[in-house]
Amino acid sequence: MINLNIIERPILYNPILIEGLPGIGNVGKMAVEYLIEKLNAKKFAEMYSDHFPYHVFINDDSTIQLPKNEFYYVKSKKHDLVLLTGDFQSMVPQGHYEISESILDFVKKLEVKRMITIGGFGVEGIPSKPKVIGAATDTDIISEFKTLGVLFEPGDRVGMIVGASGLLLGLGKRRGMSGVCLMGETFARPMFTDARASKAVLSILKSYLGIELDMADMDEKAKELNKAISKAKELEKQMVDKMKVGSGDELRYIG
Amino acid sequence: MINLNIIERPILYNPILIEGLPGIGNVGKMAVEYLIEKLNAKKFAEMYSDHFPYHVFINDDSTIQLPKNEFYYVKSKKHDLVLLTGDFQSMVPQGHYEISESILDFVKKLEVKRMITIGGFGVEGIPSKPKVIGAATDTDIISEFKTLGVLFEPGDRVGMIVGASGLLLGLGKRRGMSGVCLMGETFARPMFTDARASKAVLSILKSYLGIELDMADMDEKAKELNKAISKAKELEKQMVDKMKVGSGDELRYIG
Amino acid sequence: MINLNIIERPILYNPILIEGLPGIGNVGKMAVEYLIEKLNAKKFAEMYSDHFPYHVFINDDSTIQLPKNEFYYVKSKKHDLVLLTGDFQSMVPQGHYEISESILDFVKKLEVKRMITIGGFGVEGIPSKPKVIGAATDTDIISEFKTLGVLFEPGDRVGMIVGASGLLLGLGKRRGMSGVCLMGETFARPMFTDARASKAVLSILKSYLGIELDMADMDEKAKELNKAISKAKELEKQMVDKMKVGSGDELRYIG
Amino acid sequence: MINLNIIERPILYNPILIEGLPGIGNVGKMAVEYLIEKLNAKKFAEMYSDHFPYHVFINDDSTIQLPKNEFYYVKSKKHDLVLLTGDFQSMVPQGHYEISESILDFVKKLEVKRMITIGGFGVEGIPSKPKVIGAATDTDIISEFKTLGVLFEPGDRVGMIVGASGLLLGLGKRRGMSGVCLMGETFARPMFTDARASKAVLSILKSYLGIELDMADMDEKAKELNKAISKAKELEKQMVDKMKVGSGDELRYIG
Repeated sequence: MINLNIIERPILYNPILIEGLPGIGNVGKMAVEYLIEKLNAKKFAEMYSDHFPYHVFINDDSTIQLPKNEFYYVKSKKHDLVLLTGDFQSMVPQGHYEISESILDFVKKLEVKRMITIGGFGVEGIPSKPKVIGAATDTDIISEFKTLGVLFEPGDRVGMIVGASGLLLGLGKRRGMSGVCLMGETFARPMFTDARASKAVLSILKSYLGIELDMADMDEKAKELNKAISKAKELEKQMVDKMKVGSGDELRYIG
Repeated sequence: MINLNIIERPILYNPILIEGLPGIGNVGKMAVEYLIEKLNAKKFAEMYSDHFPYHVFINDDSTIQLPKNEFYYVKSKKHDLVLLTGDFQSMVPQGHYEISESILDFVKKLEVKRMITIGGFGVEGIPSKPKVIGAATDTDIISEFKTLGVLFEPGDRVGMIVGASGLLLGLGKRRGMSGVCLMGETFARPMFTDARASKAVLSILKSYLGIELDMADMDEKAKELNKAISKAKELEKQMVDKMKVGSGDELRYIG
Repeated sequence: MINLNIIERPILYNPILIEGLPGIGNVGKMAVEYLIEKLNAKKFAEMYSDHFPYHVFINDDSTIQLPKNEFYYVKSKKHDLVLLTGDFQSMVPQGHYEISESILDFVKKLEVKRMITIGGFGVEGIPSKPKVIGAATDTDIISEFKTLGVLFEPGDRVGMIVGASGLLLGLGKRRGMSGVCLMGETFARPMFTDARASKAVLSILKSYLGIELDMADMDEKAKELNKAISKAKELEKQMVDKMKVGSGDELRYIG
Repeated sequence: MINLNIIERPILYNPILIEGLPGIGNVGKMAVEYLIEKLNAKKFAEMYSDHFPYHVFINDDSTIQLPKNEFYYVKSKKHDLVLLTGDFQSMVPQGHYEISESILDFVKKLEVKRMITIGGFGVEGIPSKPKVIGAATDTDIISEFKTLGVLFEPGDRVGMIVGASGLLLGLGKRRGMSGVCLMGETFARPMFTDARASKAVLSILKSYLGIELDMADMDEKAKELNKAISKAKELEKQMVDKMKVGSGDELRYIG
């Protein structure tokens, strides 16, 4: 069950969908939320699904809200933009397919023909200058983004794109839409939101869309990440040390 | 699949839905069952679902019954009341959404426009005087319940409301209904039914609804809880002690 | 998805459904298969479901067959009998409800108004003379089976009936059908087929239906069970002994 | 949800479906892919399902593709062939049944009346000359394949056929189709693609279909398997050794 709440029906010129839903490093979600804020995009639709978790969030003013995905738009230079972000992705295959098909149904009505989906690409260690890896529906769009600095590598390193970032391209391709997935290299731990990887992807988007975007505050957020990672590493070390304490004649906690 | 067995179609004046289904501390279920008993409410509908467990209960007279949710009504002063309680909530997202939407479909036909959902809010330690935390569909209803002593805190402590108590508000809000969730602070263990937390919520309801409610027997039930908690703590201690026994040269059970 | 293959449409007089699907001790399945064999019942329908496992069985002649439930009928004295057994029950709530409703749809067309479902009731130790515990849709049928020696105990020992044996009664009751579940006490291990418990239930059925049933071969099967249980107990003992071997300075396998 | 993309509608003479989807030892998938390559078969349809995983693959040229099953055809001597292979099978019962029924719907339109499904039959040790075990919809087809060297054993060794190789036969039989499942004996580890077992099945197919098939390159692939197995055995040994290291006064990793 998908429930679409349309707040406004914008007329868009040559629109591009930019998707950034939660995922590894929250690279896509952070990038799209950044665009929404900096470009002053306007929310025009909300999508609800019974594949999202069965709870409501409590806002700071104690009002509640259902989990949802949100569509924003902004008028821009070469393309108007449809920006998609949200609280969750589905947890089951059928939910993923249903939600992605519903997103495509909706943006097709807005005349969207091209999509940019954003994700993280997990690597070991912390990349000080994360690269952006790409995959796309067709070779034309690959050429286009290659000139902007995106790396297109043989499939054996990346292999697959999990979730909406992949399905939107795969299902959209079947409908004649084109698109690219931009994956920022990120430290492979689920609990981090990786500003550095988001910034790397945003730099590509900036060139591609021909928009202004001063990303100085992104560097601030990246520093916070450094602190969080140091803290997590310290915790990991402490846990390993604790496990080492227990020897033959002492209490051990296992499990 | 939802199956609704309507026993009677009451005409209700300005009715409020009060929901108390099973959950942490069974705070809501106990509070609503207490209201049903004390206000002598009348059952008028039963709801069955294939998202409930696939078994039947055996009553004390050896007759069987399907798991179900139940609707009661009672004529009252300011508002007539629709009281909802039951054996189970669904275990999967789609079931939760389907059941909550069906409940809303049904109570909308009864002209219900406002809902009070009841739950527990797990805290560490045993609160001797549990507070009641609230969250609501809109700021008007928040103001109203704030004056009755309900605490409305920033979302970072509470964060979310899981299950029907949250979804009814979230899905109802989308239909133009308003409501509040009242959460009694409770000792965070799943196996307890917390009379103290239920009483705290009932005190708020008593003021809000302007009804008489002598809750002396609630204190008796709270004492039983004290005993149950002491027993559980003793058991926990024994289990920890048992785990400590095994040292390097002895048999240890793990798992 | 339910697929019903009707082989024959029998005209039945005052028919009773007797259900024995797989479950604890396979008490019901064994009892119904025994009735099918001894009463020379005739298969008249097969039921398939996409809630059954996704495999086929290989018969001894190397032909394959889908998992299924089967309906047999036999003309009898007081009541004609519809006998239901099969390879599996569903593994998920929605499947259980869908299959039980489909069974009820089908047997209602055959004018079935009464059902006897058969299950096992797990107890510790091996009951040398297993009792038959009952639960039913209404008090009339309880009185009827009490006089035949079935025990109807307060719900706190039995509590619930899981699977088709319970759901058929619960869902059938809602359609105005009556029925009883007969549970033979059985050694609570999933891997045994308990002939003794089946025999205990069959003795009740024999009286109730007024049929002849020489159950001497049942005692043979019960002896096989004794051997199987002894063997299982020996295995259990060996495993516990193995776990005891490992002391502080030796290899231990855990998990 | 099944989505069928039909690229071409071939006119086929007396066609046989040969299915080889992923499974133990990938015996079927490898055999069918080999036939596609050697017989120069032509893809004419693709099947998509929301029961497949929610990701896309990245090809070597960085284009993406959805998980899918594929149908190829080739004109042949006695029978034209419909060859079915793919990336995945469903992971849940309902998906398996839905996909198998959709495959049967589709091939029935192509006038397919007979099916050969291919799988692996896991045995311990590495069979140097793997046998081909069979099971079928009826005794006629069993006789036919027995003369070609397929072993048809009593059901107690094989027992069941899991997944599409079994369901296509079971569900097809209900529609009046006939078929056989050919299972090549294979080393029972999930991570191997067993060329030796595939070759054994292909030898049977070669005789049955009266086609030319030089399988010299299959022996090369079998040698690679030998190396992979040796490596896996070495790894297993190392892991066991590591577990043995920890004694009473040293660090042990468990879990």
